[in-house]
Amino acid sequence: MPPLQNDIFLKALLKQPISRTPVWMMRQAGRYLPEYRQLREQAGSFMNLCKNPDLACEVTLQPLRRFAFDAAILFSDILTIPDAMGLGLYFTEGEGPKFQRPVKTSADIDRLPVPDPEVELRYVMDAVRLIRKNLQGSVPLIGFSGSPWTLAAYMVEGGGSKSFQTVKGLMYGQPKLMHSLLDKLARAVAAYLNAQIAAGAQAVMLFDTWGGLLTTEDYQKFSLYYARQLRSLLVSEVDGRRIPSIWFTKGGGLWLESMADAGFDALGLDWQTDLAMARARVGHKVALQGNMDPAVLYAPPEVITEKVEEVLRKYGQGSGHVFNLGHGILPDINPEHVKAMVDAIHRCALSYPQ
Amino acid sequence: MPPLQNDIFLKALLKQPISRTPVWMMRQAGRYLPEYRQLREQAGSFMNLCKNPDLACEVTLQPLRRFAFDAAILFSDILTIPDAMGLGLYFTEGEGPKFQRPVKTSADIDRLPVPDPEVELRYVMDAVRLIRKNLQGSVPLIGFSGSPWTLAAYMVEGGGSKSFQTVKGLMYGQPKLMHSLLDKLARAVAAYLNAQIAAGAQAVMLFDTWGGLLTTEDYQKFSLYYARQLRSLLVSEVDGRRIPSIWFTKGGGLWLESMADAGFDALGLDWQTDLAMARARVGHKVALQGNMDPAVLYAPPEVITEKVEEVLRKYGQGSGHVFNLGHGILPDINPEHVKAMVDAIHRCALSYPQ
Repeated sequence: MPPLQNDIFLKALLKQPISRTPVWMMRQAGRYLPEYRQLREQAGSFMNLCKNPDLACEVTLQPLRRFAFDAAILFSDILTIPDAMGLGLYFTEGEGPKFQRPVKTSADIDRLPVPDPEVELRYVMDAVRLIRKNLQGSVPLIGFSGSPWTLAAYMVEGGGSKSFQTVKGLMYGQPKLMHSLLDKLARAVAAYLNAQIAAGAQAVMLFDTWGGLLTTEDYQKFSLYYARQLRSLLVSEVDGRRIPSIWFTKGGGLWLESMADAGFDALGLDWQTDLAMARARVGHKVALQGNMDPAVLYAPPEVITEKVEEVLRKYGQGSGHVFNLGHGILPDINPEHVKAMVDAIHRCALSYPQ
Repeated sequence: MPPLQNDIFLKALLKQPISRTPVWMMRQAGRYLPEYRQLREQAGSFMNLCKNPDLACEVTLQPLRRFAFDAAILFSDILTIPDAMGLGLYFTEGEGPKFQRPVKTSADIDRLPVPDPEVELRYVMDAVRLIRKNLQGSVPLIGFSGSPWTLAAYMVEGGGSKSFQTVKGLMYGQPKLMHSLLDKLARAVAAYLNAQIAAGAQAVMLFDTWGGLLTTEDYQKFSLYYARQLRSLLVSEVDGRRIPSIWFTKGGGLWLESMADAGFDALGLDWQTDLAMARARVGHKVALQGNMDPAVLYAPPEVITEKVEEVLRKYGQGSGHVFNLGHGILPDINPEHVKAMVDAIHRCALSYPQ
């Protein structure tokens, strides 16, 4: 493997000195890019793109050809594990992910296998290897998974939901069953991320998309507890290099202190959370990633520039910040506006010497 | 008017001594009740129920016949004001509220009239008068409206949305236009609530359903600023009696201090916000209303009892707490479970002497 040319993303996550704030974007490989939409149409479905390593690699690289991002992120879905467990993941237009065979009973949970990542999820590992090769050391590659709670929420609910009443009914009515599912998922996610690391991922991120729907106490018991457990199972170093890990709970701004104690190197922040406040509260423990409102990218370029500067100013001087949106980029954003954002970061970073 | 027999709801909002914690439920008049569904079917549509004072009165009273709630809440919608402004409110099955004529341009905003509540919203005032009469002083009546920001979000977006990109595009791209809309709405909401108070509402609540989608700074500028403005226009006393006001931002747990400074007597809390933490931070300034996870009501009665006790314990001793859910009751809840919740509050309250 050629040596890594741009490591400011990895360094920022470890709070090592850097020359400017690194930037990447959640869902940077996605529908806002015409070249993505074209490939997606040819492939026939989103999962066909994910399951074909050549296509997944191509899609991963597309945004890097347009924008000076400081990291690539594996093109895949957060729900590959339950799919590999046999639940039958599929997507319906405008309704998001669904499972053909949701988990309903104690027997369903007992029956779930912990997938062997190099067997049932081989297509992901092949994509990771191919992307690493094709990146040629330009920028690091991020691997990822859904968090145990978020996987469980989709698996029990059978898909997305406004109030996730089925999984909450299980959680409140049969907490032991819920815990046995989460315990299995924590092990499966750890094995999956370790395999991505072995295949070449240089950092990993956990998406706890639905942790923010829990009460403060249930968040500790049903989401963060298993985050900690899986973190303790993660490989931390490869060939003497630290593999930084990022934990992102959408809607988790109330729980910064406990998230910062869960063992991850960095926290992803949604746009509601004030970055200056977050740094003041947990910046001595973890790096922070985020958090411009994705809707800012609808505004004209001069407004985007202003909002980028605001985010950078909020974090302030010193390493430990990775610029990102507070959630995935929205599908109807003009790519020119992404360019305005990236340019602004490159420009502004100069006025914030590290 | 006969004198009020049960005033513990009003007293709790003003932190006056009470014998037990009062309870009511957001959406207590609603789809989980078979008698509501029957009337809704006869009426043909949700808006027909709202616009017919006799039916709105009947629906308001239905839950009080079943459960020992300590307050009634006017049966209406949060979007009556934009409807009266001529936007054409309608509801589609499973998709929530929509407007036939969303607000798009500066001219649209200039053209919007501030409705006269006793003319264009007469049906609401008639319902308030009829409900007050029919309550016969048993419990107080709560009037309500959507917050200026929440009304604006629906008005610009044309309906509900996952990311409210249209209104955010306007907010970021043309903030002055957004402010002129919000200014008009703050005046319209104040006039509307004052008319409800004149017609007989004994407390008022503002629903800021979408304030939680804003960044910390935009929340201050685009939601809370107008909350303060409308609060300053609200009638505070009628015949020497204080009319308590409640401010509820769903997803607002990060901003408790500034919400507590906006001039309202109480804050509604969603279930993610820890009630003990909220009391410690702002309990000296405001009363608190909430905040059991609505999904707890899917659990068996013994679990419901346990969770009710947890919420009461979290607030602790002393007046200043109104028990409620952290959001509206979900439509498929078994009414027997609501009874279990109310019974538990009445029982538990005895072990927390005020």
